[in-house]
Amino acid sequence: MNKKLLDAIKQLSDVESFKDVCHQQAQNHPMPSVDVLGDIVQLIRSILFPGYFGNANVNSRSMLYHIGVNVEKLHSQLSNQIKAGMCFDSREEDKACSLMDNEANDKATQFISQLSTIREKLHTDVLAAFNGDPAAKSFGEVIFCYPSIRAISNYRIANALLKLDVPLIPRIITEMAHSETGIDIHPGASIGDFFTIDHGTGVVIGETAIIGNNVKMYQGVTLGAKSFPLDADGNPIKGIQRHPRIGNNVIIYSNSTILGTITVGDGAVIGGNIWVDSDVPAGAKIVQRK
Amino acid sequence: MNKKLLDAIKQLSDVESFKDVCHQQAQNHPMPSVDVLGDIVQLIRSILFPGYFGNANVNSRSMLYHIGVNVEKLHSQLSNQIKAGMCFDSREEDKACSLMDNEANDKATQFISQLSTIREKLHTDVLAAFNGDPAAKSFGEVIFCYPSIRAISNYRIANALLKLDVPLIPRIITEMAHSETGIDIHPGASIGDFFTIDHGTGVVIGETAIIGNNVKMYQGVTLGAKSFPLDADGNPIKGIQRHPRIGNNVIIYSNSTILGTITVGDGAVIGGNIWVDSDVPAGAKIVQRK
Amino acid sequence: MNKKLLDAIKQLSDVESFKDVCHQQAQNHPMPSVDVLGDIVQLIRSILFPGYFGNANVNSRSMLYHIGVNVEKLHSQLSNQIKAGMCFDSREEDKACSLMDNEANDKATQFISQLSTIREKLHTDVLAAFNGDPAAKSFGEVIFCYPSIRAISNYRIANALLKLDVPLIPRIITEMAHSETGIDIHPGASIGDFFTIDHGTGVVIGETAIIGNNVKMYQGVTLGAKSFPLDADGNPIKGIQRHPRIGNNVIIYSNSTILGTITVGDGAVIGGNIWVDSDVPAGAKIVQRK
Amino acid sequence: MNKKLLDAIKQLSDVESFKDVCHQQAQNHPMPSVDVLGDIVQLIRSILFPGYFGNANVNSRSMLYHIGVNVEKLHSQLSNQIKAGMCFDSREEDKACSLMDNEANDKATQFISQLSTIREKLHTDVLAAFNGDPAAKSFGEVIFCYPSIRAISNYRIANALLKLDVPLIPRIITEMAHSETGIDIHPGASIGDFFTIDHGTGVVIGETAIIGNNVKMYQGVTLGAKSFPLDADGNPIKGIQRHPRIGNNVIIYSNSTILGTITVGDGAVIGGNIWVDSDVPAGAKIVQRK
Amino acid sequence: MNKKLLDAIKQLSDVESFKDVCHQQAQNHPMPSVDVLGDIVQLIRSILFPGYFGNANVNSRSMLYHIGVNVEKLHSQLSNQIKAGMCFDSREEDKACSLMDNEANDKATQFISQLSTIREKLHTDVLAAFNGDPAAKSFGEVIFCYPSIRAISNYRIANALLKLDVPLIPRIITEMAHSETGIDIHPGASIGDFFTIDHGTGVVIGETAIIGNNVKMYQGVTLGAKSFPLDADGNPIKGIQRHPRIGNNVIIYSNSTILGTITVGDGAVIGGNIWVDSDVPAGAKIVQRK
Amino acid sequence: MNKKLLDAIKQLSDVESFKDVCHQQAQNHPMPSVDVLGDIVQLIRSILFPGYFGNANVNSRSMLYHIGVNVEKLHSQLSNQIKAGMCFDSREEDKACSLMDNEANDKATQFISQLSTIREKLHTDVLAAFNGDPAAKSFGEVIFCYPSIRAISNYRIANALLKLDVPLIPRIITEMAHSETGIDIHPGASIGDFFTIDHGTGVVIGETAIIGNNVKMYQGVTLGAKSFPLDADGNPIKGIQRHPRIGNNVIIYSNSTILGTITVGDGAVIGGNIWVDSDVPAGAKIVQRK
Repeated sequence: MNKKLLDAIKQLSDVESFKDVCHQQAQNHPMPSVDVLGDIVQLIRSILFPGYFGNANVNSRSMLYHIGVNVEKLHSQLSNQIKAGMCFDSREEDKACSLMDNEANDKATQFISQLSTIREKLHTDVLAAFNGDPAAKSFGEVIFCYPSIRAISNYRIANALLKLDVPLIPRIITEMAHSETGIDIHPGASIGDFFTIDHGTGVVIGETAIIGNNVKMYQGVTLGAKSFPLDADGNPIKGIQRHPRIGNNVIIYSNSTILGTITVGDGAVIGGNIWVDSDVPAGAKIVQRK
Repeated sequence: MNKKLLDAIKQLSDVESFKDVCHQQAQNHPMPSVDVLGDIVQLIRSILFPGYFGNANVNSRSMLYHIGVNVEKLHSQLSNQIKAGMCFDSREEDKACSLMDNEANDKATQFISQLSTIREKLHTDVLAAFNGDPAAKSFGEVIFCYPSIRAISNYRIANALLKLDVPLIPRIITEMAHSETGIDIHPGASIGDFFTIDHGTGVVIGETAIIGNNVKMYQGVTLGAKSFPLDADGNPIKGIQRHPRIGNNVIIYSNSTILGTITVGDGAVIGGNIWVDSDVPAGAKIVQRK
Repeated sequence: MNKKLLDAIKQLSDVESFKDVCHQQAQNHPMPSVDVLGDIVQLIRSILFPGYFGNANVNSRSMLYHIGVNVEKLHSQLSNQIKAGMCFDSREEDKACSLMDNEANDKATQFISQLSTIREKLHTDVLAAFNGDPAAKSFGEVIFCYPSIRAISNYRIANALLKLDVPLIPRIITEMAHSETGIDIHPGASIGDFFTIDHGTGVVIGETAIIGNNVKMYQGVTLGAKSFPLDADGNPIKGIQRHPRIGNNVIIYSNSTILGTITVGDGAVIGGNIWVDSDVPAGAKIVQRK
Repeated sequence: MNKKLLDAIKQLSDVESFKDVCHQQAQNHPMPSVDVLGDIVQLIRSILFPGYFGNANVNSRSMLYHIGVNVEKLHSQLSNQIKAGMCFDSREEDKACSLMDNEANDKATQFISQLSTIREKLHTDVLAAFNGDPAAKSFGEVIFCYPSIRAISNYRIANALLKLDVPLIPRIITEMAHSETGIDIHPGASIGDFFTIDHGTGVVIGETAIIGNNVKMYQGVTLGAKSFPLDADGNPIKGIQRHPRIGNNVIIYSNSTILGTITVGDGAVIGGNIWVDSDVPAGAKIVQRK
Repeated sequence: MNKKLLDAIKQLSDVESFKDVCHQQAQNHPMPSVDVLGDIVQLIRSILFPGYFGNANVNSRSMLYHIGVNVEKLHSQLSNQIKAGMCFDSREEDKACSLMDNEANDKATQFISQLSTIREKLHTDVLAAFNGDPAAKSFGEVIFCYPSIRAISNYRIANALLKLDVPLIPRIITEMAHSETGIDIHPGASIGDFFTIDHGTGVVIGETAIIGNNVKMYQGVTLGAKSFPLDADGNPIKGIQRHPRIGNNVIIYSNSTILGTITVGDGAVIGGNIWVDSDVPAGAKIVQRK
Repeated sequence: MNKKLLDAIKQLSDVESFKDVCHQQAQNHPMPSVDVLGDIVQLIRSILFPGYFGNANVNSRSMLYHIGVNVEKLHSQLSNQIKAGMCFDSREEDKACSLMDNEANDKATQFISQLSTIREKLHTDVLAAFNGDPAAKSFGEVIFCYPSIRAISNYRIANALLKLDVPLIPRIITEMAHSETGIDIHPGASIGDFFTIDHGTGVVIGETAIIGNNVKMYQGVTLGAKSFPLDADGNPIKGIQRHPRIGNNVIIYSNSTILGTITVGDGAVIGGNIWVDSDVPAGAKIVQRK
């Protein structure tokens, strides 16, 4: 413990030095936790796809017990993390946090009521991946090891939480999938049924993107913003519509970039490695010039 | 535990609701496990590159003991996971699974017999990475921290297992590397010696791609399929040849996409950000038009 | 333990077979450890951004204690890993390693003396990310869950260590972020303040790249080398200048590739999916031809 | 790795040296595991005393789910350990072990069918401890932290398993309690309802001891054997009756030793620190001579 | 999942079957936890005996930081467990538990204010153990590995908490030491300075025992109750004075039993294996008759 | 963090307050660790009794590999802990600790050279336990779950280390067994072959006790010191001979206390609950007076 270290400690503990990059969570209230949210996503997957995930063998006789215990555990852990997100966001004092318990419990309950619908939607995504990929050997292989199913699961979970006005948590959940799969879907995007992403690394789907049913994308595709309207202070206006609307039955090949509030019509096919920033009519095929 | 939660439990436990997305592994037989396969890959790395991986210091006097213990442990764990893959795939009842022990043991033994050859091939990949990258400071640095070596190791392991007709497990092993490195090599691809991938994120090498010796690729390169022949039901035919054949001594720069059953001749150089869907003659250089 | 396995053990333990791919760390001296370096990065983050990371609630009264304990712990762990990197690199015998303790301690101390400056720089990066992204809901959200902040933090830490001539460790630290975020920044690159990367997957910033202040990049952007001068033996010359120089206030859109020792002038805007291998004047806007 | 170590390895690996102290479990069949049995006992406690043990909050609405999941998990883990005990004991080859699955499953099922009775018996033990100890503040305190309840629980579990002819496992379960509490009850002993042990350290209850209802013991009490009949080879005859029979409503104070196949009559009181090796009539009070 | 198991589940979930042996902690409020209390005791030891316990090296320059962080962590964890004990005891509904936060925080603070006094007392115990045991090689050895110091530490901690009217937690803390050392000291006992117990297994010190300064005991000594006054219902009256009072400078040899509300005068010596149930005058020596 | 806590921190960090109860280990040198020593004992058991302990199945073909790896690992871990004990004891500065590496390595090597002899001795203890206990069902049961074997193993290990002048570590190893089994054997005691302890809780065998071959003891037996000669300062003289010498073929029944430098002759039998402080002739039988 020499003088240099003691000086560094002093400097780093100086209020001026840390005040803008420090977070003080209300005492006794939980921080959002990437580890706990990882467990929560794993728990949701074990409810949605019984037998594929979770530690237990399942069968139809014992299904009720497993779902019962997992739903109760999910409700408890998720309420906690929803509250953690609300506290984190509010930056208010203890009292405010303590009052959030009921609201957090309610949101967790509402989310759980939607799990059955989320399961149905994911079922369509699995079907689309299996049917669309000549390399897919079995239905189970798709559920068990396709990164796109992981990314889309996290998105559908996060999207449902965002619609319940849960702050922060949805973004953490999609970033977990982003880190794991290289697929970055903003929880605010709107995505139809039978959605597939092949390979997936580098895919970006922005906050206000809208995607129809039966759409297929390849690795490296971006649905991005072209430019952001600025506010009076010269900063981008938050949350404004700025991403493309993709119709039904569209295919977008690898590494293409679709930008701005344009519309890609039903049944369009967009080739690889191209840059699209104006509307694409229904049924059109666009490819890179050689 | 209010009524809404009880309703959700009931709904999610309904046979109609889960029957298509549920997996029932034969009782007492192992599920394939990403965690265990992670340990297995780590164990194989400690056998292939002694001293770099694994917890123990090694020296030539104690090498035999370490290899002996690690090979025995590998055989036991790998047999188990191979059997798990076979059970998962068969979806058959208990009896079938119990009978797979011998076959799984044999496949694990055959795989282990090939480890010495796999080590030789990976040695050429390490040499190529070290020689080809001005940022590589030492041979050890390449083995110890280059993501491409990790991805190619997993591919070479998975490819050997696939050739032994092991189901599911090879794909999980390459997906582990995909998640870790952003490099997605299908275990079915065929890849020669002295193979290197620089940076690597976003690389995709499809199931039926064939790559010669001494090939170098950069990040974002795709060796993909252009279109899939459909069967009578309108679904893609599984496993059909649909990816490029790359010759010896080829370089492919970043973010380029090579599609379909085309051939890229020996010594060709393909520039970055381009889309190639027809044969490239030996020695040719292709670049993006400005 | 049948004959095939015994043969494999014999073959894999043969000195000829392992001598080129084996590492023998000096006895009793630590190996570099990805796990320990993960803990170290986590510890540094808890010092730089108090309250966001680490397990403890902080407040201004207890800040000094937390910083004190964390700095002491960091010094001890980091000295150890710096020494591990030096031993790994030297490949020398025990004695040499034992003598490295003091030098490693000094480097760790010098690094810690710079943490306060690193915190200031990262503060500018957080500001730039918050201001530049319409989807960013709060300052805390950016620090807590943006992958770009993670990647840039690891880069700034690794860059400081590299400047102190610490071998191997800096590269491991940036590769950890590469794996987690898909953003590959070489520790040798030089990057100014207010730097942001949106989405980030597939970004590559080479060893000798130089980036000014207030630069923004999107996913898939490469700052790469065009070709490497070879030495007399036909191998690339290590460490030579070979990457672009990017001015201040530059924006580079997704999936573009900037190659070679060119200069992109202040205020330039480079569109998506394009390949740039010659100088770009200040204020220029370059886009893909349709 | 110097010569001395190499010599030691050689010596310790010599068949003559290890053949009598080595155990070879049939391949792929589990070893009995103190850790797993610890988890099993914990699981049984969470079934018997819901809410006190196990990680979950319980309530009457969710009780069925928790019991269901825990019973299924218990059946699976316990079948496995019962089989492990049977394999350990049989020392037979693989085939024999494989055939034990059904028998082990049956024994586990029979044990689980008795859990409700075991719960009733333990309830009487808890009542006796609470009523008999002026220091016991609440019923919950007794269940949650009295070592005697732990020791008696393990005994009642082990005794039920022993009666099902499960080898080895019962002894391991009582030794776990012995280690934790200093109370050594052989699983073969027969013990009535409302049994309490105060403090408990040093208590020994032998294999063929028989204890009535409503008996109370203090620390250091031994119910032991006086002498063992020898067989023709001069070795003790295994399993023969050799311990005392204790009537109902008996109290035995600390550190007393009751030896041999004697009978202590109903309602007798035996003072501390004494040695008893002949019958004690009902209602008698025995104390140490000063 | 056969019928027998389903029946067992039904039976064990029946309200009548579990209602008396089930605990329902108020939702969202912590259960007392033996694991957490183990961590708390470890934390207290690292504060009381810096450098012997806890993971960090300490020195006088960094002591303040370590004590600061440890005290803050202790306050947070201990408040939580104190509250858990209060909730457990109250068996009241949620609201009651929520209101206990302040009281629990206060009690934790008061306890921490006494740590410095507890350290002084334990220092005298360490001195007595070192001076009194010819086998003690160093002061550090006594602190680091003598079970008696562990048991007396837990007692002194528990006793301080009990005096602050903390329910349940003190008993759990002394039972932890009981399990580890075989020494069972009730937290309600009153024990002077310079207290030592040699070997210790089997020692029992009852709830209302009073022990002077400079007392030494050996293994197996009991300070117990002789009989309990019964209340109108025939149950022992809780908490009544019923254990011996031991003067200063007393030695009690192994396995002796001192019973009832008697007084052992200053300087008395009680030999081994004897039973004492009447007053012992100051300076007397009592031994077993041969 | 209120004022009371800040005051407590200040008080507890005051040099006067901690200087006598604080340990400062030389920087970068390991502390003795109960956890690591637990692993070391487990490792030694897996070498001594192959197949019973440790995670791997063993067979004669793979024995050499397992013993080789385990011996190397043991040497490394044990050297480290021996050095830790030497540093702890010396309380000297860094330099002194650094110089202890060679000596610690040598002691570890010498210890390992004796493992084969220790195995032989323990084999006799296992035989004695099996032959002497009618409840012992198999040889394997004795090795795998008898607490006496655990305690005697730790003693024989600790005794060998003590004879090599290793400080502190031997005592920690016997205290680990003391905690687990309630059997407290000082590492300095001298114990012959075929030694058994039945049940064992409360047994104490002092530092200078000498025990012949084929001795059997029951729970609660003490071989203790009667009185200690004092030095000029009134403190006991360390390490002086003060415990009994027990001949061959002696049996000592439960809870008896043998005190002082007396001799118990060959073939003597000492009954339970008695106090012996004078010589016992060979072949004598002593019992408690009624």
